[in-house]
Amino acid sequence: MKNECLRLYENREDITLTCYVWTDTPELLGGKKRPAVLICPGGGYFNCSDREAEPIALRFAAMGYHTFVLRYSTYAEGGSFPNIGEPIAVKQRDMHPAPLCDIGAAMRLICAHENEWLVDITRIAVCGFSAGGHNAAMYATRWQENGFPKPAAAILGYPLTDYVFKHKYESRQMGGVTMFFRASDTAFLGTAEPTEEQLEDVSPARHVTKATPPTFLWATAADELVPVQHSLLMATALANTGVPFEIHIFEKGKHGMGLADQASAEALSDCNADAAGWAALAAKWLEKRFALPLPEKSAFERMMESGGNPGFGG
Amino acid sequence: MKNECLRLYENREDITLTCYVWTDTPELLGGKKRPAVLICPGGGYFNCSDREAEPIALRFAAMGYHTFVLRYSTYAEGGSFPNIGEPIAVKQRDMHPAPLCDIGAAMRLICAHENEWLVDITRIAVCGFSAGGHNAAMYATRWQENGFPKPAAAILGYPLTDYVFKHKYESRQMGGVTMFFRASDTAFLGTAEPTEEQLEDVSPARHVTKATPPTFLWATAADELVPVQHSLLMATALANTGVPFEIHIFEKGKHGMGLADQASAEALSDCNADAAGWAALAAKWLEKRFALPLPEKSAFERMMESGGNPGFGG
Repeated sequence: MKNECLRLYENREDITLTCYVWTDTPELLGGKKRPAVLICPGGGYFNCSDREAEPIALRFAAMGYHTFVLRYSTYAEGGSFPNIGEPIAVKQRDMHPAPLCDIGAAMRLICAHENEWLVDITRIAVCGFSAGGHNAAMYATRWQENGFPKPAAAILGYPLTDYVFKHKYESRQMGGVTMFFRASDTAFLGTAEPTEEQLEDVSPARHVTKATPPTFLWATAADELVPVQHSLLMATALANTGVPFEIHIFEKGKHGMGLADQASAEALSDCNADAAGWAALAAKWLEKRFALPLPEKSAFERMMESGGNPGFGG
Repeated sequence: MKNECLRLYENREDITLTCYVWTDTPELLGGKKRPAVLICPGGGYFNCSDREAEPIALRFAAMGYHTFVLRYSTYAEGGSFPNIGEPIAVKQRDMHPAPLCDIGAAMRLICAHENEWLVDITRIAVCGFSAGGHNAAMYATRWQENGFPKPAAAILGYPLTDYVFKHKYESRQMGGVTMFFRASDTAFLGTAEPTEEQLEDVSPARHVTKATPPTFLWATAADELVPVQHSLLMATALANTGVPFEIHIFEKGKHGMGLADQASAEALSDCNADAAGWAALAAKWLEKRFALPLPEKSAFERMMESGGNPGFGG
């Protein structure tokens, strides 16, 4: 495995692509290219959560794909979470569309290493969780407007997908959550009171087109921070547009569980045996599109059939 | 992730420990130590197969464990597979007990990095496949005789476990297989015609004691190279001795499938959807012993309970 952390821009040490690139060998793909998964951790556009970074990268790597964790522009810029108990100052350079453009830059960086890393650049999925799921969904629905590389699939865990809905819903939520989202909107949109036009503009569920790639969604009905309707609205938009999709909503489990197993947990409360099934479901779904380029038979089997000298590898 | 390849001995560049060490963060274990899995690829004591190396390491890493791939002493010494169509010369330095001692040296190297890598050295599993499964089983049953660190569990995929049985059985097998094992015995024991005493000595199924750790076994009944009886003999010895174990034998699937999915495959013939279930079964079994040290609630939940300032992480 080649594991390195690359900067996306020379002048920003907080915006990085951490690579988990498979070591090529004649016993596996022997020079052929692998599909890849680009992962955007969540964190409310305040930070990029470690719990939705390496654990997710290793899980998709174990399926046979190159994986990449993108730490995109966020308010904390790699530092600590801001105090959101009071209004926060606007930080222009981390606001929309910076996080979206970071995905575009990361895709281009991966494409530029196509031959060095042996990446099948026609099969790169964007994947994200919570705010990272929103960012990935923004990319899945808006890549073509920006001339960015086309993603081959999207994998979204408990994403925000509709800011218009979000703002209507928030008025019904408890004070702490509203405070959180006012700060998050300031971080992401530069204002705690965005206009209807701004809300519509950053709502991927309102921008699904035929150019949106096949999408896998999962969430929990019990999510108290990002209501499950966001996933349902996205699924409905995909269905309305005829984009292939799969959605799995588990009854229980809080927001932000990542893999929902011990590998991505800070505490036992981050684990849920049912929801933890999502990654295996995503693996099956993704493999239908991202099957590795394997021949029918191994070199040994082909040699035996042609009467060669046995040289067992197992 | 810290991914590096360390030499076990200064004068041997072929005997290496490739490390897949989790990056610590306050959002995950926050300074607490992780269990680990040490992996021995198979290859008939001729080589160490890449197909049973990185793919396995990534799969167990994705469960939340540090993982290590050991390339132990084998006949090819990191080079190409020998021509086994004719008798091969003896290579003393790669013979038994070198492969077993390499596991001991690897365990000591891991223990020496306990604090740097944050490894829970009381919970290190040895894992192996085919000849690597034999080597891991040798370690699981003989570590205490050699004063090596104690393994906390053993995970054995289609292992050889009984050389006495193997030699009786081989006379019934086809010519190619017998030729393979005569060469393998020369590589591992220094002779194509080992004595009964030698065979008994390297048969882990005949050396199970109360000091043998809990063991997970899996194999396929259709294995034509290493008959499934090896796994059954080991399971029987564990049952007779009262060592906790679990065994899963799938009906179909050839020898040497590794994960039995695309991630470890050279060809589609290396995949089997049923047998591929073994890794999830192993994950559940291992987690009963290797649960990560997680608190009941996250720092955020504890803070909220004590009336603090919300600082969402998801």
